[in-house]
Order: sequence, then C-alpha cells, then structure tokens
Amino acid sequence: MNITLDQAEKIITSAKERAASIDTKMNIAVVDAGANLLAFARMDGAWLGSLDISIKKAKTARFFDMDTGAIGELSQPGGSLYNIEHSNRGLITFPGGIPVKNSSGEIIGAIGVSGSSVENDHDVATAGANAL
Amino acid sequence: MNITLDQAEKIITSAKERAASIDTKMNIAVVDAGANLLAFARMDGAWLGSLDISIKKAKTARFFDMDTGAIGELSQPGGSLYNIEHSNRGLITFPGGIPVKNSSGEIIGAIGVSGSSVENDHDVATAGANAL
Amino acid sequence: MNITLDQAEKIITSAKERAASIDTKMNIAVVDAGANLLAFARMDGAWLGSLDISIKKAKTARFFDMDTGAIGELSQPGGSLYNIEHSNRGLITFPGGIPVKNSSGEIIGAIGVSGSSVENDHDVATAGANAL
Amino acid sequence: MNITLDQAEKIITSAKERAASIDTKMNIAVVDAGANLLAFARMDGAWLGSLDISIKKAKTARFFDMDTGAIGELSQPGGSLYNIEHSNRGLITFPGGIPVKNSSGEIIGAIGVSGSSVENDHDVATAGANAL
Repeated sequence: MNITLDQAEKIITSAKERAASIDTKMNIAVVDAGANLLAFARMDGAWLGSLDISIKKAKTARFFDMDTGAIGELSQPGGSLYNIEHSNRGLITFPGGIPVKNSSGEIIGAIGVSGSSVENDHDVATAGANAL
Repeated sequence: MNITLDQAEKIITSAKERAASIDTKMNIAVVDAGANLLAFARMDGAWLGSLDISIKKAKTARFFDMDTGAIGELSQPGGSLYNIEHSNRGLITFPGGIPVKNSSGEIIGAIGVSGSSVENDHDVATAGANAL
Repeated sequence: MNITLDQAEKIITSAKERAASIDTKMNIAVVDAGANLLAFARMDGAWLGSLDISIKKAKTARFFDMDTGAIGELSQPGGSLYNIEHSNRGLITFPGGIPVKNSSGEIIGAIGVSGSSVENDHDVATAGANAL
Repeated sequence: MNITLDQAEKIITSAKERAASIDTKMNIAVVDAGANLLAFARMDGAWLGSLDISIKKAKTARFFDMDTGAIGELSQPGGSLYNIEHSNRGLITFPGGIPVKNSSGEIIGAIGVSGSSVENDHDVATAGANAL
C-alpha cells in the first residue's frame, strides 16, 4: 500500500489549516512509502531553513516508522542511537515527523512539519496525519 | 517581488490538469525568486527519478532566468557553456523548466516538470507558468 | 525587500573596521533574503577554516531569522533542536550570524562573521548589521 | 606570494566598473594562491546560478594556472582532458576565469566572472585581473 497524491494533498490542506489556526507559518512535506517526496508546501513567510528540515523529518519518520521525537530520545549523548543523524544524508530527530497510516493502520508514508516550536510542529503534523 | 504559495498551487493545479489531458504522469516543482522550493507534487505513478529532475529544472530556470532548453543548446560539446551542468550541485538543461512571471512581466519564480518526453514536459510547464 | 550589493559592501566595510579596531582578522559573509551569498571578504591572515563557517553562519541566521547563538542554545544535547546542524547541508549555531534589517525593520539578508572568539565574532557581526 | 584582500577588492572594483560599462550584471569571485575564496560580489540583478559558476571559474583558473577557456578546449569529447569537470567538486571550463599575477609575473590568485556571454565574462575578468 502506498499513499496517493490526492491523500497527500488532503494532508497538506489539513496541516495548513491547523498551522494558520495556531498562527504559525510552516513548511509541510509528505513522503510516500519509499520515503521519496510526494508533495510539499511552504507557507508564505515560513523559515527558509525549515524547508530542508520538514523534508528530513518526513523521511526520518518513514525510515524508521516512528515519530521523529522518539528517535531523538535515543540519539542523545550516551544513548543507544547516538548521532544516528549522520546517516541517510542527514536525519532530523526532534518532533515534527509522523508516519501516515491508512484506515487499516498500515503505514503508507509520512509527514514532516517545521517552522515553529517543536511542540507546534508536532501538533500540525498530527493534524495532517489525521486527515486520512 | 516573490511568488506566493497560493500562486504556486494554482500553477501546480494547472500543470496537473494539462498533464492528465495529454495522458502523462508528472513531477511538478515550483521554486521562488530565491530558487528555493515552494511547492511540489508528484502524480501517482510518475517516474521516481523525475522527482529530482523536476526540482533541478525549476532551479535552473530561475538561476539563469530562461527556459532550461535554451541553456542546453549552449552546453553541448563545443558549445560556449559546455558542461555548465557541473555547477550549482547539478543543473538540468533540457526542456521542462520555465521562469514564472507576474502580470507586470517580472520573474517571481520558476516551474520544473519531468515525467515524459521533453516536449511534453515543456508543454506541461508552459501550462503551469501560464496559470498566473 | 532584498538587500543590495551597495548595502552589503557598507556592512562589510563596517565589520572590517570593527574587526581591526579589536585586533582580530575575520571572514565576513553577507547573504541576501534568499540566503544566497551576496558579498564576502576574508581579511589577510584570517583562519581559512572560518571561510565556510562565516558563510554558514550568515545562511543559518537568514534560514531562521534569528541570531545563530539563539539556535545553538536550543540544539544542545537534550535541547528541543538537538542536532539541527545536520540540516541544510550544515548549519553553524554558535554566535556570529545575525539577520540584517532595513530601516523599516524588515529582514533583508544576514551577516556571518568568523575568525576569533564567538564573542568577538558576534561583536563584529553586530557592527556590520548596524551599518544600515 | 599571495594576493591580499586589498588587491582583491581593487580587482572587484575594476571588474564591476567594466561590467557596468558594457551593461552587464556579474558575479565576481577572487580566490587566493590556495584557491580559497578571498572576496566576492554579486551585482544587483545578476543571475543567481552564476554565483557558483564564478567561484568555480576562479578556482579552476588557479587549480591549473591558466585561463578556464584553455582547459575547456581540452575537455571536449575525444580531448585529452575529457570530463575533467568531474574533479575538485566540479570545475567550470568555459571562459571567465583568469589567473591573477603580481608585478613580477607570479600567479598570486585568480578571478572568476559569470553573468553574461562567455565573451563578456572573459572581458570583465580581464579588466579585473589587469587592475593590479
């Protein structure tokens, strides 16, 4: 099972609405089951540096089928995955990346959001992932 | 002057409609005036390898404010810009990338399309660029 | 709004003067609103390794529209942005990068300075940013 | 012997004046004897994609102590240096890069110019190199 562009656009629309409702400007990326970029939108005035971070969050979430923040807890100094961020041409392991599931609970892609605090990024990513 | 996300989404919608009407599946990228990705969509079943090509076409068109195919004519063996593709972390210099202008004729970004013949790619990019 | 080359050269001149007055040798980079290099100068005898750092500081400051040191406080082990430096082909998150604003307070680019202690780097970057 | 920042700034000033006098907008880079960037200026409205090209031209000219165009003649298909552009993280081998010599004829750095036809690029680079 793989995510469709139609689904990805629904996700981005929901994420944009949530971002606007909490007064943030986000970069929003959706990757497919192969961790390749499927759809992307950068809201007007959003941080330029969050472009790459949103894509890396989405890829990271699909690479390991878990929220990016969960990996970040393990990649701290002394942690079991210390400096895993060096792999895959750069991971981002703080919150804002979430796997996307279909109605059967299968992971079909992932969303990555960046542009505000990690709490807001995660909030908006959750709104996007829940759009399906 | 810089392109807005709303304008970029209009461009992608028009490009997708044109792609569907000529029975092709495209990767469509829009960059802003700074040549940074603003919006992207990969149609279901489109070539994966065209993801990067579409983004590089959009960037190339904005980097030099001209259609990508015009650069390709000059970058052939013996041409004045031979092997210019080695710059800027990789250019794509065959057709499919077109600058996007506002109603005043100012370049505000660019579109890159990849997924079919270069003629079709250019055709779809043109439809996108003309959406504004 | 985007910074002009004339403005960038005023910034570099002021930064060089401040650097000389505190007996340091600096690499000084200015990027535009799109985070692309606009002007650069490396003072005679300045560290070679600071060339790349000064450019990355300027880009980082524009990527997130804040002083680089503010990001570094959040990217420490256990911090909310831990290892953000892996994004955007490499960030530099210690002091020395500052957004540049026009007289209306709009961010139009950024300056990055490297070549001495981070306190001196920040001091010289501030002198540059205040030249406008 | 190595070029100084003062010399590099004289070179850039002369190149900018020549560029303006022939109605072009250039990216102008100067590297030192170690082929590392020493000074850079992008004229307002100059092509963004020429930023990287101007730096690569300057580096290429110093890497081999000859005009970039001379290398390009040898790097054509069937030529003795075919595809040398793949080395050194990307060379640019069409005209616009020229070694810079001191009054004793020693090579102390190089200039790279990009933003117009290769003939204009070479013309402006020559004006810059002759400023010393």
